[in-house]
Amino acid sequence: MLSLMSDTNDGYLELGQLVALIVQEKTTTRADLARLTGLARSTISQRVDQLLNLEVLVGAGAGPSSGGRRPTLLTLNPAAGIVLAADLGATHARLAMATLSGQIEAEHGMDIDIAEGPDVVLPWLMDRFAEMLDENGRSPRDVRAIGMGVPGPVEFLTGTVVQPPIMPGWDGVIIPDVLCKQFDVPVLVDNDVNIMGLGEYWSRGLRDEQVLFVKVGTGIGCGIVTNGQVHHGADGAAGDIGHVRVTVETDVLCSCGNLNCLESLASGSALARQLASEGLEAKNAMDVVRLSQAGDAKALRLVRVAGQRIGEVLASLVNFYNPSRIILGGALAGLHDNLLAGIRAVVYERALPLATRRLTIETSAFGHRSAVLGATILGTHGALTPGNISDWVRNESASS
Amino acid sequence: MLSLMSDTNDGYLELGQLVALIVQEKTTTRADLARLTGLARSTISQRVDQLLNLEVLVGAGAGPSSGGRRPTLLTLNPAAGIVLAADLGATHARLAMATLSGQIEAEHGMDIDIAEGPDVVLPWLMDRFAEMLDENGRSPRDVRAIGMGVPGPVEFLTGTVVQPPIMPGWDGVIIPDVLCKQFDVPVLVDNDVNIMGLGEYWSRGLRDEQVLFVKVGTGIGCGIVTNGQVHHGADGAAGDIGHVRVTVETDVLCSCGNLNCLESLASGSALARQLASEGLEAKNAMDVVRLSQAGDAKALRLVRVAGQRIGEVLASLVNFYNPSRIILGGALAGLHDNLLAGIRAVVYERALPLATRRLTIETSAFGHRSAVLGATILGTHGALTPGNISDWVRNESASS
Repeated sequence: MLSLMSDTNDGYLELGQLVALIVQEKTTTRADLARLTGLARSTISQRVDQLLNLEVLVGAGAGPSSGGRRPTLLTLNPAAGIVLAADLGATHARLAMATLSGQIEAEHGMDIDIAEGPDVVLPWLMDRFAEMLDENGRSPRDVRAIGMGVPGPVEFLTGTVVQPPIMPGWDGVIIPDVLCKQFDVPVLVDNDVNIMGLGEYWSRGLRDEQVLFVKVGTGIGCGIVTNGQVHHGADGAAGDIGHVRVTVETDVLCSCGNLNCLESLASGSALARQLASEGLEAKNAMDVVRLSQAGDAKALRLVRVAGQRIGEVLASLVNFYNPSRIILGGALAGLHDNLLAGIRAVVYERALPLATRRLTIETSAFGHRSAVLGATILGTHGALTPGNISDWVRNESASS
Repeated sequence: MLSLMSDTNDGYLELGQLVALIVQEKTTTRADLARLTGLARSTISQRVDQLLNLEVLVGAGAGPSSGGRRPTLLTLNPAAGIVLAADLGATHARLAMATLSGQIEAEHGMDIDIAEGPDVVLPWLMDRFAEMLDENGRSPRDVRAIGMGVPGPVEFLTGTVVQPPIMPGWDGVIIPDVLCKQFDVPVLVDNDVNIMGLGEYWSRGLRDEQVLFVKVGTGIGCGIVTNGQVHHGADGAAGDIGHVRVTVETDVLCSCGNLNCLESLASGSALARQLASEGLEAKNAMDVVRLSQAGDAKALRLVRVAGQRIGEVLASLVNFYNPSRIILGGALAGLHDNLLAGIRAVVYERALPLATRRLTIETSAFGHRSAVLGATILGTHGALTPGNISDWVRNESASS
C-alpha cells in the first residue's frame, strides 16, 4: 500500500508517489488513480499529463468502458530509464542492464579478482557499465539506479563494506560514494547471499513465502527474505550461519577462532581440505564438485555428511523461523542429490512436524544468475521509491 | 504509513482510515489532515465534524497559529471505547481492560486450569469480562476489540489453537468464534510467548529494535518481534526453540520423541526432574526457583548449566537473526543472576563479534504482566485498523 502523505510541499514527490502507485498497479486509468488516491479528478489529469509529456508514463491502449468513451490505460514507460546491476564474487563478476520493470536487456559474466581492492575493481566496474550502455545504445543519463552485491558483510543503509573476510582492502569502503562520481543515482549494495535470496524470491514470484536462501560454496551463508524484503538484523550481520557450532567427535578450529563452526566442517573449502588430507587432488570447492561428479566415493561420502551437518543447523532454524521454503545455492549446490538428500533427511527428522508441514527444500532455480537477478531487483526498487522517482522527474523537467 | 486508497465506496472505511491516521499522529489539525491525505479541506472538515458528533474524535485544545485563528487539535476520544485483554496460562489468568490508547483501567490475576477445556474456560472468561465491565461502569457496547494469549500454538489469522501440548481439549478450537457470541468485535489471539514479546516491545517503546523474547518456565519458547510485529512464520510455528537439539554427553529423551531437545534439559520441569533424581523435593519450575533462592548449591549449579545450554541455542540464533535485544521472561527468569550469567557467557563467547556488538541481554521489565500488556496491545491494534474502526463507526451512526 502506498501513501500519498508527504512531509514536504515538493510537487515532484507527489509525482513520484503517483508513478510508484502506477508501477504497483501495473496499468491503471485516470479515474482509478482518482479513486485510489482520493485526489480530485482534475488534479490527477493535470499530473498525468505532466508525466506523459516527460515520457515517464506512456499510454497502453484503451481500458474497458464504464459507459462513455473508453479510458486510456496508463503504464510506466519502459524507455523511461534503466537500472544497472552487478554481482561481484571473489573471482567472478556478472553484470546486467535492465528496464525499470526488471526485464534484462544485456548480461555478461567475466573474471575478476576482488582481492585487487576497490581502487582497481570499482573503476573497472564503472568502465564495464559505460561499455554496456554504449553497446546497447543507452546513455549514462538513462540510468535511474544501480543494484549491487559483494561477497562480504555490508551495512545496507549506507552501502559500506564491514570487516569482509575475503575482500582485502575493502573494509569501510562506502561503495555508493565511489560509484556516484560517475553515476549520480541511488546505489544499493548488499551481501551476495542476500541478493541471491532476493533474486529467487522476486524472479519466481514467491509472494507470501518466507524464504531462506542457503549458499554453500567456499563459505556458508544464508539470506532471509520475508515480505519481499531482506532481513538484515541489528548490525547487518543476519544470516551468518557459517559460524554456528555443530556437534563433532574431534574438534576443528575455524578461521574465526572458535571450534566446530559449520563452515569449518561443511563448506567447499573444508571438504577440499578433508579430501586433500586423504591424498586426493583437491584445492577448492570446484575440485570437490569435480571429484564428486566423477563418482569418487570418498568425495560423495563427504558431501553427504556435509549435507547432514548443514541440515542439523537448518533444523534449528526451521523451528525458530518456520520458513516456507529453503533454497540451496552456491558452488556445492551443483551436487544436488547428495547434498540435498543429507539436508532433507536431517531437517525432516529433527525439526518439529508443525514447522515442516508445508516446507519445501530445493535447489536454486537460477543457479549462478540468482545474484545478478537480485541486484537488478535491488536496482528497480531503488529507482522506484517515490523520493527517487521525484529526483529523476525533477531532472527530466529541468532538462526538457 | 497509511493509505487512503480504498477498494470499496463505503464512506465508513474512509472515516476509519482518517481515525487511524489521527491515532498515528496522536494529535493533528484539519489543515494537517488535508495536507497529509491530499483530500480537499472542505471534505476533511465535513468528515471530522461527523466523527466529532459521533464522539469518536474529541478536541484537545488549540494548536499553534499559522497566522489566523488557532486551529483545533483533534485526538481520538479516550472514551470512544475500550479493549479487553486476557493472558491465559496453564494455571493462571490475567485479565485487563484498557482505553483505545492502551492505558490500563483495570487488571486482575486469578487461578484457572486450562486443562478444564474451552467449554469451561471460555464461558468463565466471558463472565469475568462482563463483571469487569460492570464493576468499571462500562457496557459490552463499549468494547471495540479483544486481545488474548494462550499457552500453545495458534494460527494467528484465524485464532485457531493448533495441536497444543498442554491444553487438552483445545486442539482446533477457533477462539474468536466462541467469544463473538457474547462480544461481536475483532478477537485477536496469539501464543503467550509472542504476546509477551509484543508487550515488552510496545510498553517500553523499543521502536527500531529487533527483539527476541525468551520464556523459560515449564517449557522454553521464543517470541520474535521486528518492526512492531510478531514474526509467525509459514505455519504459525516460529519461535519454537524448545526443541532445538543441544550437545550433551548422555542422551535425554524429550516428550516430542526426539533426543536432547533444549526443553528436555534446561526447562523448569527438566530441572525439577533432575533435582528430584538427586533426592530433593522438586516437582515443578517453582520448586526450582524456591530451592535456588534458598541457596541450594545443586539447584544453583543446575540453573547455571541450564543458562549455558540456552545460551548455546541463542548464540546460533544471534548469528542467524542478529537481534538487538534478547529479553528473558518466564518463571525461571526470576533467577536472573545465575540464568542470565550462563546465557551471556555462552552467547558472547560463541556468537560472531559483529552480531553482538550492540546486543543487550536482560530480564523482562514487566515480569508476569508482560503477557497481559501484550494482549492489550493486540486488542488496540485490532480495534484501530481502518476496517475495524469503520465497523464501529457504522454501528455508532446507526444507533445514534
